[in-house]
Amino acid sequence: MPKKIRLGIIGGGGDSLIGVLHRVASFINDNYEIVGAVFNPDYEQNLAFAKEIDVPTDRIYKDFDTLVEEELKLPEDERIQVCSVLTPNFLHFPMAKKLLENGFHVICEKPMTMNYEEAKTLQEVYERSGRVFALTHTYTGYPMVRQMREMIKDGALGKIHKVDARYYQGWINTVIHDKEKRSTVWRLDPKKAGISSCIGDIGVHASNLIEYTTGLKIKSVLCDFNYLYDDNQMDVDGTVLIRMDKHVKGVVRASQVATGEENGLAIAIYGEKGAFRWEQEKPNFLYKMSDTEPLQVYKPGHAYNSELSLKASKIPAGHPEGIFDSMANIYLGAARAIRGEAYNDGEFPTMKDGVRGMNFIESTVASHKQGNVWVNLD
Amino acid sequence: MPKKIRLGIIGGGGDSLIGVLHRVASFINDNYEIVGAVFNPDYEQNLAFAKEIDVPTDRIYKDFDTLVEEELKLPEDERIQVCSVLTPNFLHFPMAKKLLENGFHVICEKPMTMNYEEAKTLQEVYERSGRVFALTHTYTGYPMVRQMREMIKDGALGKIHKVDARYYQGWINTVIHDKEKRSTVWRLDPKKAGISSCIGDIGVHASNLIEYTTGLKIKSVLCDFNYLYDDNQMDVDGTVLIRMDKHVKGVVRASQVATGEENGLAIAIYGEKGAFRWEQEKPNFLYKMSDTEPLQVYKPGHAYNSELSLKASKIPAGHPEGIFDSMANIYLGAARAIRGEAYNDGEFPTMKDGVRGMNFIESTVASHKQGNVWVNLD
Amino acid sequence: MPKKIRLGIIGGGGDSLIGVLHRVASFINDNYEIVGAVFNPDYEQNLAFAKEIDVPTDRIYKDFDTLVEEELKLPEDERIQVCSVLTPNFLHFPMAKKLLENGFHVICEKPMTMNYEEAKTLQEVYERSGRVFALTHTYTGYPMVRQMREMIKDGALGKIHKVDARYYQGWINTVIHDKEKRSTVWRLDPKKAGISSCIGDIGVHASNLIEYTTGLKIKSVLCDFNYLYDDNQMDVDGTVLIRMDKHVKGVVRASQVATGEENGLAIAIYGEKGAFRWEQEKPNFLYKMSDTEPLQVYKPGHAYNSELSLKASKIPAGHPEGIFDSMANIYLGAARAIRGEAYNDGEFPTMKDGVRGMNFIESTVASHKQGNVWVNLD
Amino acid sequence: MPKKIRLGIIGGGGDSLIGVLHRVASFINDNYEIVGAVFNPDYEQNLAFAKEIDVPTDRIYKDFDTLVEEELKLPEDERIQVCSVLTPNFLHFPMAKKLLENGFHVICEKPMTMNYEEAKTLQEVYERSGRVFALTHTYTGYPMVRQMREMIKDGALGKIHKVDARYYQGWINTVIHDKEKRSTVWRLDPKKAGISSCIGDIGVHASNLIEYTTGLKIKSVLCDFNYLYDDNQMDVDGTVLIRMDKHVKGVVRASQVATGEENGLAIAIYGEKGAFRWEQEKPNFLYKMSDTEPLQVYKPGHAYNSELSLKASKIPAGHPEGIFDSMANIYLGAARAIRGEAYNDGEFPTMKDGVRGMNFIESTVASHKQGNVWVNLD
Repeated sequence: MPKKIRLGIIGGGGDSLIGVLHRVASFINDNYEIVGAVFNPDYEQNLAFAKEIDVPTDRIYKDFDTLVEEELKLPEDERIQVCSVLTPNFLHFPMAKKLLENGFHVICEKPMTMNYEEAKTLQEVYERSGRVFALTHTYTGYPMVRQMREMIKDGALGKIHKVDARYYQGWINTVIHDKEKRSTVWRLDPKKAGISSCIGDIGVHASNLIEYTTGLKIKSVLCDFNYLYDDNQMDVDGTVLIRMDKHVKGVVRASQVATGEENGLAIAIYGEKGAFRWEQEKPNFLYKMSDTEPLQVYKPGHAYNSELSLKASKIPAGHPEGIFDSMANIYLGAARAIRGEAYNDGEFPTMKDGVRGMNFIESTVASHKQGNVWVNLD
Repeated sequence: MPKKIRLGIIGGGGDSLIGVLHRVASFINDNYEIVGAVFNPDYEQNLAFAKEIDVPTDRIYKDFDTLVEEELKLPEDERIQVCSVLTPNFLHFPMAKKLLENGFHVICEKPMTMNYEEAKTLQEVYERSGRVFALTHTYTGYPMVRQMREMIKDGALGKIHKVDARYYQGWINTVIHDKEKRSTVWRLDPKKAGISSCIGDIGVHASNLIEYTTGLKIKSVLCDFNYLYDDNQMDVDGTVLIRMDKHVKGVVRASQVATGEENGLAIAIYGEKGAFRWEQEKPNFLYKMSDTEPLQVYKPGHAYNSELSLKASKIPAGHPEGIFDSMANIYLGAARAIRGEAYNDGEFPTMKDGVRGMNFIESTVASHKQGNVWVNLD
Repeated sequence: MPKKIRLGIIGGGGDSLIGVLHRVASFINDNYEIVGAVFNPDYEQNLAFAKEIDVPTDRIYKDFDTLVEEELKLPEDERIQVCSVLTPNFLHFPMAKKLLENGFHVICEKPMTMNYEEAKTLQEVYERSGRVFALTHTYTGYPMVRQMREMIKDGALGKIHKVDARYYQGWINTVIHDKEKRSTVWRLDPKKAGISSCIGDIGVHASNLIEYTTGLKIKSVLCDFNYLYDDNQMDVDGTVLIRMDKHVKGVVRASQVATGEENGLAIAIYGEKGAFRWEQEKPNFLYKMSDTEPLQVYKPGHAYNSELSLKASKIPAGHPEGIFDSMANIYLGAARAIRGEAYNDGEFPTMKDGVRGMNFIESTVASHKQGNVWVNLD
Repeated sequence: MPKKIRLGIIGGGGDSLIGVLHRVASFINDNYEIVGAVFNPDYEQNLAFAKEIDVPTDRIYKDFDTLVEEELKLPEDERIQVCSVLTPNFLHFPMAKKLLENGFHVICEKPMTMNYEEAKTLQEVYERSGRVFALTHTYTGYPMVRQMREMIKDGALGKIHKVDARYYQGWINTVIHDKEKRSTVWRLDPKKAGISSCIGDIGVHASNLIEYTTGLKIKSVLCDFNYLYDDNQMDVDGTVLIRMDKHVKGVVRASQVATGEENGLAIAIYGEKGAFRWEQEKPNFLYKMSDTEPLQVYKPGHAYNSELSLKASKIPAGHPEGIFDSMANIYLGAARAIRGEAYNDGEFPTMKDGVRGMNFIESTVASHKQGNVWVNLD
């Protein structure tokens, strides 16, 4: 008998975009109820936001540590079961770690940690904990991404020969071209934002999507970053040559200075028998290509789709679902895991995706810094 | 101070598609809480569904009349404020009427009533009631539809000369081509489904969208239906020549036998200075055309959009929102009205849209039955 | 042994757009040589143009009658074999008639005649003549239009249920909205341009394409024109309800005031087993739809295409061919007929297409003038 | 007074695809007449083809050397003025060289030579000759490519920050995956096809298009090839990191094993003020992007286009022109140069494009062979 899972939220208050995305995603499939939170480091704002969205204020805590402490005092069947960690990047690691160590399940925004070392540490904690850990690589929740994965697994492309992924945005232009702004914004400050801006923030979505859909692992990378200005310390654009298992080669392209691009994530997977193309901004169209047959366009909700894909759409074909629905599918997968139900490996990204991601990011940075040489991932 | 609005749901239980659409839409902007319901005419199933989605069962009623009766016994600040009516078509009118008469606000699925006469009656009840009535013409909730409306209002197209709307689906093919099925399915039984299948169910969305975006009224129609088989009593396809205010002519095309079409609603509005095209299946792309300038593609979330459009998207450009988000915008507008806040005329469809719609449907049926002649709307 | 066909050109001199289209089309498949012409009614300009495009001037005649007279004096194996008639509309009929009566083959621009009566007269002359008559309904030359025709003939759609064709342009806006211009331009003068502007010029392409691809005939029409201004005598927009053989219903929409539309010809054919959509502005993409399978996109040059389609493209898939190539395919078909080779019915439009077209145009005008009533075609 | 230019053709007989492309392109603007040829190394087939396409056989020569010898005996005003060299790759250099040395203008297929050394030699011959040399980088003939070039030159993008070009095809799959075929086909034999398959054949189009549109030069490359099989000696896929003038970085991606891709050439140019995207398979759509304004779609034939673009389209907007028309624009530019008329730098690709191309190809091969290191171009 399903019963709503008790959800705690850390961060995501006020006008936070990530806040509304997670909150809505948690609601969509009737699986979660927000029972406690630290929406904001400022306690007054925290309470005010709770009232604004009509969450009872009795379990709105003054800070993260208090939340953990107080919740642990509650009986297990009242206690928060899972926390969504939506705080600034550098807090993901310590918070996720403490939550797992204290028996909470965790849904964590990306990047999972600030570096690969932390990621491996967190992985150890996770493995000992027996808890569920979901990393919100949101784009793996789209029905057509899942369809691609399942069809590749079923051999629709035959042996894969080439992959090509792109994640182009233009939003950082207003910052990077302004000397004052680029030297002060936290996004371009390695101490605050981590070792990479462009690959760390978006390139890693592309690499994750490649591994998610093909089931192959990236083995080594050769990367060239673009900083645009000499006084800028963070990559705002990068191209990564990749080599994967089974002699597959490919490229990951990421940019935050691709003027006019909004959220241009796209992948193409080419195999011996066919190929796939998919674009995030038109998420409900999956293109299957062949050298000999007409191109086919798969769409969600049709009986020809795989079960994993069908479970990721709620209403009939032709009614577009979007990114909130995609994130909701990840929350749905996590809910099944939290309840101890059987679930498919592709239903939500996990700790291993987070560890792979940090390994990828650090390797690209190393490759660039060492003069665009090949660097192996673990 | 916002406080969640107490929502009752009538219908929409089990696997109901309309149920999940409304439920999610009510959650999305943190405005509503489901406090009471009659999800299902079978009381056991009703209770079971409430448990499944974890709604407290103490205000799950055995039927609609009991819901009204029992809720009225509750103090006003605990009582359901608004009911979503998601029942079969013929129940919309009596339920909405009784709800309004008893002081409840109403969110009602379409068609609002079974005929124009009922619609006018309901309008009178509504006007006396002082309550909010929202009709869920879902497609008016899309940010780009709202952008179109605002730009037209601001004169972007100059005088309008021509409109063209299409709503093509293919889903009824599996029913209509089967002699047995087409004579037994309730969808094609005028006693159960009303006087029109194709225009009543989908054509009216197209006519509504034309009036919503242009601000003009349809004055007369000339319609040719297609029944496909002699033993079929309901239109499954129809083309409607229309004449609007200010000498605007146009066409509304609707079909349920347009094989392979999913939910193909699209409109084009041509004016002296420019034109718009928009398609429901790619809802985040609005095409603005000109005889002399490059075509422009508007997308949600950009600062160049109108306020009405911007309020209808939650996150930055390039992150696709879909039909759940569109419906959520209608719930958002209704929430503002229910709370007594000021709201824009375009924030949700109202009683007048419902009355217009029934007037349109009846007029097309009359036109066809009288031999494809012009019939005036009121 | 192929040997270039001796081609005469009437009209199409100077900057004539139709001139360059026909001239290039005649060259493309190495089938024609221009040996004589009256490019221009002004003899000096006629000669100058011949020199400009390097056609020998010895058979550049001062007028059409002289061309016929002088060519008839030449031995048959030197004489012009076929004339392309590219003159103003009202001259098509008398010139085509005289050419056929004197033993010349004819390639004729559309509209074939000024009215249906002339069309029937020309048909009689043609039938007696034993000559080839090709009407340049250019759009039937596209490989994907031909593919659609062949697949429909082979039953890919099953029984057809509905057709929808559109031809929207915006070019007349600059004329129609100017009181001075609209009363003086020949295009809107019924004495010079014929009984219909919009349907006569472009609507008839849409009706032709429907009959070409489906093999069905339009039996009756109900039409509503739009003149926009009371002082304008010619339709600049029209919507035509149609009924075809075998109980097929549909709609033909045409407009010259569809602001921002360039050359927006598009058709959709819906059948029991599948459907097709095609748009002239993206001519190399043919969409095949199904209720149960992924949408398929056919493109020219692939082995999966029919022979009629494959013969209409010259180079491998992915190298776009356009409207010159489409017209060239009609010239190619005509060349095969002129040489007495066997040819497929779909290789070029003929006299019967011209007669059908005039019948369609007159019927729509009659329908509108009689108050939007059904008018039967022959 | 224009007078048709006397054209000789070397190669391109029979079913040659490149043959029909050049022949049609030469006809399209009424500028050229084929007066002599060696269509085929087999003299009988050569003559037969000339008869088939109705070229007089008196100047059909038994081989290239005879053509040169015999034509030189003719008076200058009868002699072939320009030769199109359409022979296998390894013959381009010796033929073009001999033609230039003997006073003929040359239109040459690509690759211009087998290596960079030959290219530089040819350049010296060319510079001494005073003749016109046009290299048929066909894609620079498209109106929208030319529009991009002109708008970039006029500053529409501001400072350029990033370029991304792709040329993906799948045609070699049927060869490469077959052990027998891949070891015998001339395409994958370095002695016959040159040092590179994928970059040499198609990658160089992408690099040329980048330099053509931006006016910037590629300064260095780092390349990773994919051979797919150990026994294959030629690249069938490659990704090239590039660095250009003015600190612009970018990537060129080329593949012949991108299953299902037809002729997928596409470029994107990102600058401070805006960006362009263009795809060869939809050549009449040019996308101009901005961070703050709606995306704009430029199309050929509109008054808003530059003169260079407008001269490259023949008929009004909305009538698609294709690759034959694009190649015809290059022939048109060459005709203007041959006649000694003033012409714009962008009207046809020249010797310098050929030299740059060979420099690019050799540098990518060197980069790959040296272990994916940066290699500078001259």
